[in-house]
Amino acid sequence: MANVSRRNFFKIGAVGAGMIALGSTAANADTKKVKYDEEYDVVIIGSGFAALSAAITSAEKGNKVVIVEKMGRIGGNSVINGGLLAVVHSPKQKAEGVQDSVELYMKDSMKAGRNINHPELLKVIATRSNDALNLVQKCGAKFYDKLSHLGGHSVPRTYLSANGSGSGIVIPMFNYLKKMPNVTIKRRTKFEEFILDDTGSVVGILAKEKYRFDSKLKDDDRENKTGKEKYYKAKKGVVMASGGFSRDIFYRKQQDPRISDDADSTNQPGATAGALLKAFEVGAVPVHVSWIQFGPWACPDEKGFGAASNFNINATFRYGISVNAKTGKRYMNELADRRTRATAMFKLVNDNKNYPINICDQTAVDNIIPELAEKALKAGVVKKYNTIEDLAAAYGIPLKELKETIKQYNNYVKAGKDPDFGKPVDKADGVQIAKAPFYGTKGVPKLHHTMGGLKINTKAQVISTKTKEPIPGLYAAGEITGGTHGASRLGSCSIPDCLVFGMIAGENI
Amino acid sequence: MANVSRRNFFKIGAVGAGMIALGSTAANADTKKVKYDEEYDVVIIGSGFAALSAAITSAEKGNKVVIVEKMGRIGGNSVINGGLLAVVHSPKQKAEGVQDSVELYMKDSMKAGRNINHPELLKVIATRSNDALNLVQKCGAKFYDKLSHLGGHSVPRTYLSANGSGSGIVIPMFNYLKKMPNVTIKRRTKFEEFILDDTGSVVGILAKEKYRFDSKLKDDDRENKTGKEKYYKAKKGVVMASGGFSRDIFYRKQQDPRISDDADSTNQPGATAGALLKAFEVGAVPVHVSWIQFGPWACPDEKGFGAASNFNINATFRYGISVNAKTGKRYMNELADRRTRATAMFKLVNDNKNYPINICDQTAVDNIIPELAEKALKAGVVKKYNTIEDLAAAYGIPLKELKETIKQYNNYVKAGKDPDFGKPVDKADGVQIAKAPFYGTKGVPKLHHTMGGLKINTKAQVISTKTKEPIPGLYAAGEITGGTHGASRLGSCSIPDCLVFGMIAGENI
Repeated sequence: MANVSRRNFFKIGAVGAGMIALGSTAANADTKKVKYDEEYDVVIIGSGFAALSAAITSAEKGNKVVIVEKMGRIGGNSVINGGLLAVVHSPKQKAEGVQDSVELYMKDSMKAGRNINHPELLKVIATRSNDALNLVQKCGAKFYDKLSHLGGHSVPRTYLSANGSGSGIVIPMFNYLKKMPNVTIKRRTKFEEFILDDTGSVVGILAKEKYRFDSKLKDDDRENKTGKEKYYKAKKGVVMASGGFSRDIFYRKQQDPRISDDADSTNQPGATAGALLKAFEVGAVPVHVSWIQFGPWACPDEKGFGAASNFNINATFRYGISVNAKTGKRYMNELADRRTRATAMFKLVNDNKNYPINICDQTAVDNIIPELAEKALKAGVVKKYNTIEDLAAAYGIPLKELKETIKQYNNYVKAGKDPDFGKPVDKADGVQIAKAPFYGTKGVPKLHHTMGGLKINTKAQVISTKTKEPIPGLYAAGEITGGTHGASRLGSCSIPDCLVFGMIAGENI
Repeated sequence: MANVSRRNFFKIGAVGAGMIALGSTAANADTKKVKYDEEYDVVIIGSGFAALSAAITSAEKGNKVVIVEKMGRIGGNSVINGGLLAVVHSPKQKAEGVQDSVELYMKDSMKAGRNINHPELLKVIATRSNDALNLVQKCGAKFYDKLSHLGGHSVPRTYLSANGSGSGIVIPMFNYLKKMPNVTIKRRTKFEEFILDDTGSVVGILAKEKYRFDSKLKDDDRENKTGKEKYYKAKKGVVMASGGFSRDIFYRKQQDPRISDDADSTNQPGATAGALLKAFEVGAVPVHVSWIQFGPWACPDEKGFGAASNFNINATFRYGISVNAKTGKRYMNELADRRTRATAMFKLVNDNKNYPINICDQTAVDNIIPELAEKALKAGVVKKYNTIEDLAAAYGIPLKELKETIKQYNNYVKAGKDPDFGKPVDKADGVQIAKAPFYGTKGVPKLHHTMGGLKINTKAQVISTKTKEPIPGLYAAGEITGGTHGASRLGSCSIPDCLVFGMIAGENI
């Protein structure tokens, strides 16, 4: 096997089920011939929430586990996101007297997802979200005292990592794993191909070690020739937890040709479609792969997720407003689901070349964890103004109209009802835009989450198009799967998705 | 190879690129070992518009062509559909003085498609639609004298087959092909697997002859064990023209779990996802595979496309109205795009268990080809009433409200503007609902078209996820491809899509 060059491998990789079928006897024989470089019980592709959760759960059962991460650092998008985790029937909901239910979580998710979500998966997430919370707390993750109430959720149910970032969850999980002698963590190691036995079970992978992801390449998956091939045996199973494809310029464009090559994304550069497409080749069912979500809370003055996103999620959208800079008027429900908000914002950004301005006051900022405002101010993406006059002048907003908008909005908060856009202003804790200084930031939607992926069942097993049954030995969790979020996911629903199905994959292998 | 049983074949089919890679030398050797039962230049999978168009074009160049159709009859959905063909800059547009353009066709399609259509493919369809018209007219297809003006189109551009059905196009094409000595047509022959050579080129297929499709099986693709395996060599290429998956109970449900197993479809029972999923296994790019279209003009009183669909498309929606049976009021723009209309109708059907009633008068019927009304009346799905009173009584519509609705609608037609729903009433040729007898029919949306599929380029070549270049030897056309229609296609845009890309596949092989 050693003489199968990368180039030949790729060519042969292009050979599909037909030719293979013809080579069946030979292929079967070859299965036995594979010389594995390393042997594990469980091979996990990726190192974000889903991967770490699967690793902890399966390693605690005594399995020998390897985590395979192509990038130089652990944590994928999980370590740079907002650290928001929706939990149903959580201790904080009890403490705050919030009435919630599995059914309400499902209903909120289905509404945002345009009702094409797979309900059996949603139910699992909601039911086991508390177990996921326990898992990360056991690892040492800390959370902000107060629940967040995010757009599209009927009730506050969102835990916010104490440092306002996913790193506050990933790092404790990673440190927990590092202490386990039966867990190996490989960075700069890229999943290349599945190895299957003659019954079609996944029994290992081909990986490339010393892989140097090159973000200067337009298409790393296809152009990067670095790394050294290694065969890893997976005695019990392979878990695909490699995330979404928001940074795959070619593949995302097939789903929406409007997404330009340089369109900004909140994701890390390794978020490509390579692993997903390999799974389709072994017959995984594609689900919802054309749905791509833009995060409506990003800022055009910085790259990626940045510092403004968390400020908007927690401060301006809940306790403030977003206005059209040209008119000074609101144009959307600031707490609507992401798809609705991104569509409304794109209308301004694309049609009118006009970035909306997100605004809140000091009371709003006093209500959130201080780090979020500090980071955003330091980055220069959120700015502080002593008066509304100053803020309006800075962004060129017509002052009279803006003042009128704020006055009207404050009345809506008082009345507990927003007749213009239906924002659930009762969730703003009575905070009006009144106390100086005032905060402003430009808004833009950025590519954030790819809803579609592999079909899994409630045991995190990947389903085959050929049998409609699980592909033996193949599991998946997190953003690489499809169905849980439907057409558009709610904020803070990805982390429980990742953690719960990672945990379940670990439990079932 | 003869001793590779179906069962083993299937198992091996589940083996993916990894294992194959390992068996590379053996697999290459096996390529040469394949004993082909038959040899052709071009193998075409399917026998609808796209397949027949590809067959004619490639056979006229002197190629030896085989058409592989799994069903007992030729024509797939093409032979049972509405026979509507949108053409830009057509002779009839010239005769009727209609100003049209490639850009306008693209704009209309993009609007209906939610702007995710692939513009380069749309442009090809519009530009070459006249060539497609010429092709079928050369075969002897006849069309109704007058252009139809369908929902979502800015101008009349739709040719209607003289017998009001796709059969009026398919049968002449089929008869034309039967006269060509270099064309073989195989019915009850099912595409099973691709054969690829050691460079990854598609060089043939494995088929099953004497296949007996069994519509009593819930899942024919996976459960049917009939047929005898045969290997066909394709010296120049394979064209995938096997259509969409509206009747694939498993696969369509993955994309929208709301679609019940017994949900009715306008499609023939062979419209499954089998061939599409095989193409994903050899690395074809999935595009828009979660978008499924419901035809808003079907009738719950008959199965499938039936006789009411064409009546509604041509008569009631253009020259009449659709009303909520409980209120007697209109609830939508009867000429909106299909997705918009289906959504509005589902709201009535699902939420209120209330089939909408589509209504027109005798003038409307005088304006359409007589066969359409005759067929629908004979089938009992459209009914004739001497008075509005009789019609209202038959469907339990509140009479006073219905009369008021009709009066108002007639005023809108007179004024040339519908302020309620924005129907382009100027396209109704001034026809008011006034002349007895009156016609009524119950409406329901049925599964009609699956927008997504394989990514092709403007040469009808199937694009590979591995190289972003064409998979050598593999072409596709029609409903199995994705991208042309975006999220929702306009009526009469599928036939030009099928004919044009079938023709182009034939030209390029």
